[in-house]
Amino acid sequence: MDPPAVGEAVKRVIVALDPARRGDVDRLLDMARLVCGVGAGIKVGLPMLALGGSEALAEAARLCKGGGLRVLDLKLADIGYIMRLAAESLSRGFDAAIAHAFVGYEGGLVELKKTLDGLGARLVLVVSMSHPGSREVLDPCLDKLLAVARRVEPWGVVAPATRPEVVARVRETLPTTVILSPGVGAQGGKPGDAICLGGADYEIVGRMVAGSPDPVSALRGVAEYIAARCPEKLLHSSTGNGPS
Amino acid sequence: MDPPAVGEAVKRVIVALDPARRGDVDRLLDMARLVCGVGAGIKVGLPMLALGGSEALAEAARLCKGGGLRVLDLKLADIGYIMRLAAESLSRGFDAAIAHAFVGYEGGLVELKKTLDGLGARLVLVVSMSHPGSREVLDPCLDKLLAVARRVEPWGVVAPATRPEVVARVRETLPTTVILSPGVGAQGGKPGDAICLGGADYEIVGRMVAGSPDPVSALRGVAEYIAARCPEKLLHSSTGNGPS
Repeated sequence: MDPPAVGEAVKRVIVALDPARRGDVDRLLDMARLVCGVGAGIKVGLPMLALGGSEALAEAARLCKGGGLRVLDLKLADIGYIMRLAAESLSRGFDAAIAHAFVGYEGGLVELKKTLDGLGARLVLVVSMSHPGSREVLDPCLDKLLAVARRVEPWGVVAPATRPEVVARVRETLPTTVILSPGVGAQGGKPGDAICLGGADYEIVGRMVAGSPDPVSALRGVAEYIAARCPEKLLHSSTGNGPS
Repeated sequence: MDPPAVGEAVKRVIVALDPARRGDVDRLLDMARLVCGVGAGIKVGLPMLALGGSEALAEAARLCKGGGLRVLDLKLADIGYIMRLAAESLSRGFDAAIAHAFVGYEGGLVELKKTLDGLGARLVLVVSMSHPGSREVLDPCLDKLLAVARRVEPWGVVAPATRPEVVARVRETLPTTVILSPGVGAQGGKPGDAICLGGADYEIVGRMVAGSPDPVSALRGVAEYIAARCPEKLLHSSTGNGPS
């Protein structure tokens, strides 16, 4: 039996399943079955679509049904008409779909939100990214991105575990919006950086778990690391908008 | 035989082939064969991938080989690692691939450019979009987006035919970079708005041609409209970076 904080922490870790080659697709789909019952859920996107087709996306969503959040991460960033077509054909079976806030509301995200609402899927908007290039345009324009997020009212936003100060600023601006934070592990963020330091609800881990020979142990290891850093925060999630 | 300006204009019109449902995929692939020898080329993206799989993307590129520009438009907007995976698995056979300038250089576009260079494909960066939402974040941050474009040095950039003044500003800032302008037709831009008023090299037309029962005639109609507006500009392309 996990100590309470570890049990709570593991439910805050989403595993990103991004195949690097066709041979990875089946291995990562098998992994979905393993990690789904343990962690917060899974995230699949363009690499899975490119290498495994829409069938692999649908299979990932099916395997994780009832086992946590199923996040479709195509980083949608086109005009409303095109994002709508993509959402209609790909987001069935997913709990949430990720798009970019910088696309803007008019003729863009307003159409996507309507489509996702109709499919019972939640919208997550990227307001900052985990790689260094995010400092060049996204971060200087964060105020405008947060203004779009306030207008669109997504269920969640993405802010980077690699820069917890950005997560903290997003949390301050959007106190009741769920924050998902990629960038833990291969990209340099340490488990707990976003949840403990920034106030995020979820951390997204990719290669650190998906590249492990024993993904469930690796996932537990991430959770233990987070739990050791901020047990009180995990047990008394201040935002009240923890995973539902 | 087309009058010279019409002959030149038709070589400046790229047809976007975006299926709205699975049944459209084959029809649009057949259309690729028709329009490729006539216009400047084709653009396919997420709807074709979602509804026809990577096989449909590859088929579109194959059908248009030697018949003009083949542009892959996934609006890539992720960290470098993910964009690299997508480019490696999908951009073979394409002449150019579109990504978003706002992703930034470090850990983002620098990796994508290297991958595309290795595949012999050219990078096109979106610096502004054709829908009204582009006024909310992208346009106010255009200076920063153009700075990223100057650093990345893509073969081309995307700027909207729906706002020719933005095209003109991009042309002024990036005098030798090819400008591709979507937004003609269904989105409200008139043929020639980007080329004649803004100095773009190509206009991208989607449903106006792809939705026509006679796409080649519709394509010629667009070209005649452009040619009537600025014959001299077409015949003496000032930027010298006309389609090559």
